[in-house]
Amino acid sequence: MKIAILGYGTIGTGVYEIIQQYTASDLQDLEVVKVLDLPQNKDKLDIITSDINDIVLDPQIDCVVEVMGGIHPAYEFISAALTNKKHVVTANKAVVAAHIEEFTALANKNGVRFLFEASTGGGIPWIASLKKAKRIDDIHHFYGIFNGTGNYILDAMTRQGKDFDVVLKKAQELGYAEADPSADIDGYDVQNKVVISSAVAFNALVDMKEFLCYGIRNITKADIEYFKNLGFTIKYIGEATMNQNHYEAFVMPNLFDQSAVEANINSNFNIATLNGQSIGPLKFYGQGAGKLPTANAIVQDVIDIECPHTAYNLDFSNQLTYKAVQKNAFVIRTNTKVEDVNINKVEEVASNYYLHTKEIDADALRELVDKCNDKGVFVAKVAKFEG
Amino acid sequence: MKIAILGYGTIGTGVYEIIQQYTASDLQDLEVVKVLDLPQNKDKLDIITSDINDIVLDPQIDCVVEVMGGIHPAYEFISAALTNKKHVVTANKAVVAAHIEEFTALANKNGVRFLFEASTGGGIPWIASLKKAKRIDDIHHFYGIFNGTGNYILDAMTRQGKDFDVVLKKAQELGYAEADPSADIDGYDVQNKVVISSAVAFNALVDMKEFLCYGIRNITKADIEYFKNLGFTIKYIGEATMNQNHYEAFVMPNLFDQSAVEANINSNFNIATLNGQSIGPLKFYGQGAGKLPTANAIVQDVIDIECPHTAYNLDFSNQLTYKAVQKNAFVIRTNTKVEDVNINKVEEVASNYYLHTKEIDADALRELVDKCNDKGVFVAKVAKFEG
Repeated sequence: MKIAILGYGTIGTGVYEIIQQYTASDLQDLEVVKVLDLPQNKDKLDIITSDINDIVLDPQIDCVVEVMGGIHPAYEFISAALTNKKHVVTANKAVVAAHIEEFTALANKNGVRFLFEASTGGGIPWIASLKKAKRIDDIHHFYGIFNGTGNYILDAMTRQGKDFDVVLKKAQELGYAEADPSADIDGYDVQNKVVISSAVAFNALVDMKEFLCYGIRNITKADIEYFKNLGFTIKYIGEATMNQNHYEAFVMPNLFDQSAVEANINSNFNIATLNGQSIGPLKFYGQGAGKLPTANAIVQDVIDIECPHTAYNLDFSNQLTYKAVQKNAFVIRTNTKVEDVNINKVEEVASNYYLHTKEIDADALRELVDKCNDKGVFVAKVAKFEG
Repeated sequence: MKIAILGYGTIGTGVYEIIQQYTASDLQDLEVVKVLDLPQNKDKLDIITSDINDIVLDPQIDCVVEVMGGIHPAYEFISAALTNKKHVVTANKAVVAAHIEEFTALANKNGVRFLFEASTGGGIPWIASLKKAKRIDDIHHFYGIFNGTGNYILDAMTRQGKDFDVVLKKAQELGYAEADPSADIDGYDVQNKVVISSAVAFNALVDMKEFLCYGIRNITKADIEYFKNLGFTIKYIGEATMNQNHYEAFVMPNLFDQSAVEANINSNFNIATLNGQSIGPLKFYGQGAGKLPTANAIVQDVIDIECPHTAYNLDFSNQLTYKAVQKNAFVIRTNTKVEDVNINKVEEVASNYYLHTKEIDADALRELVDKCNDKGVFVAKVAKFEG
């Protein structure tokens, strides 16, 4: 199979290295024939072009690997590749989450595959495992730690007792967090991954504007300490549930018992859990980001293109609407002493109030948080996952 | 694909149910056409036969699922099926571990697949994930909790403070442990799984008579308590390492920090970890046994038969010999106060001695344990796994 890579940054270099330098037999009929990068980088590699038409119009190319990131021009380039009957493999969660249904339709129309394992969970075989589980079971629920940067920050705060700002700065120095960390700490990154995972798990498009999303930007050392004293470890969770014609999703910090598997996922690792009626719970753990793990996931997709049972394109046959159904207990830390029928218990710690809610649905939680009217509010859910 | 099931016990019933009753599209071209069971069970199902020749000589049958357990007549029936050009899928770890090279050669000769996902890790997609990782990376090391019964016993002793005998009896009542629990608590079950996993990971046959195997039969409530006070949780681990032309394997209790992922695997769940040069560590967690999880793994193999990239037959191209290389610290609990240059520290607790060794190899450990000359000896390794 002849491959073109769009983008020769960290991940693109990793894909090139694995395909061209690794010796495993499944890699032997793969070849990188062109790489798209900026004109000034042409001397890095003799197959670099800066003209996308050199790739999408080249009849020898079977598969285009997109690792540029961002929506534009990734959207236009993926569309052009699919239209020209090239399989597309991408790691770009933003463009996948925004256009997954359109790309799938275009791939189906042109008889090629659209694959995106590396967009969610990095090196973890999460998307392929969801697809594999669905060969037998229905999947009605999944959850996981999908953001390595967020986990790195919470883990360092928890185990080293450091402040949020100090840990975020360290994450930026290590290359785990970007200069603008908003996607990681305000939940957009995990929202994208919940949309992508839901598409695979539920055959449906879910709308990230509908579901609850609270980030970790406002968490303090005092919050970590408060919850630790209650026996909880805080982890940043994305999850979704399908219930007949409805879905529900949450992106928010969760409070886990210290002996839960998720509570013991350290550093920047990810873990994701699916649950099927015959298989029960399955968990998948690994590197959620990084050059070689992400490149590995991309190359796995390329190899899978020949397997109809794992590399199929999605269908979006289920029309699901958002509905707040599940009841959960939440804890809200705020500077206002809010009184409400849904609050069970209030604890004051150093001029802050920890409001422990009854088991309430997402709509009731939103109302409570609005009532706090506190820009620095921190909201967490008491985890109650099975398995 | 037309399928025959050998054995209509718990797992066989599960396979039949999934194939005949589940509605997922990948199952629609699968059909169970014959089931082998005892003559007295013929009224259970109208496709039951008690003559193996009705199956292996039937030209319409494409795939034989063997779920009888034990070496005989499973060995003869698998051999006959492969010889008659039927794909074989089995959950039978004992017969796979004993004859994996022979079955593979026979399958290759007859142009069919020999698959055994369900033999190791039950419902966890462990064998397929090892194969998938090897499409890109070399795998030099794996480890895991491969015995659900053992984990159930250790977990109940640790979290409920119960005695070994009480917990074993409960495990037998729940159907987790057999009337003769030796395979589970003396390590033979895990030895088989290490042989099978090594064949997949290393392309090599390892000899379970060579490597260290210590069980959990002798563990006491006092041992659990002693190690808990040192910050350790005990888990029953199988592992193997390939190092150039050598391999090394261990089946024995390991002492994990209480915050390790493995330390927090509860009940009868399994978890297994591989490590590849680009993917890093990947962990897979799920039900290591049980009717539907095991049946699910079998049916996954059946579906995979059409995928050349995941369902290939093994090769045994690496000739590895056993060599004790790794240095580990061990703790031996015995009734004898042994003195030895390899012992760092001795602690006496209620007439027992906990001997803490230096970092020593497996040969030196064997010598030390022999020197104790204590039938009730308990031996554990201090875990030092990465990732």
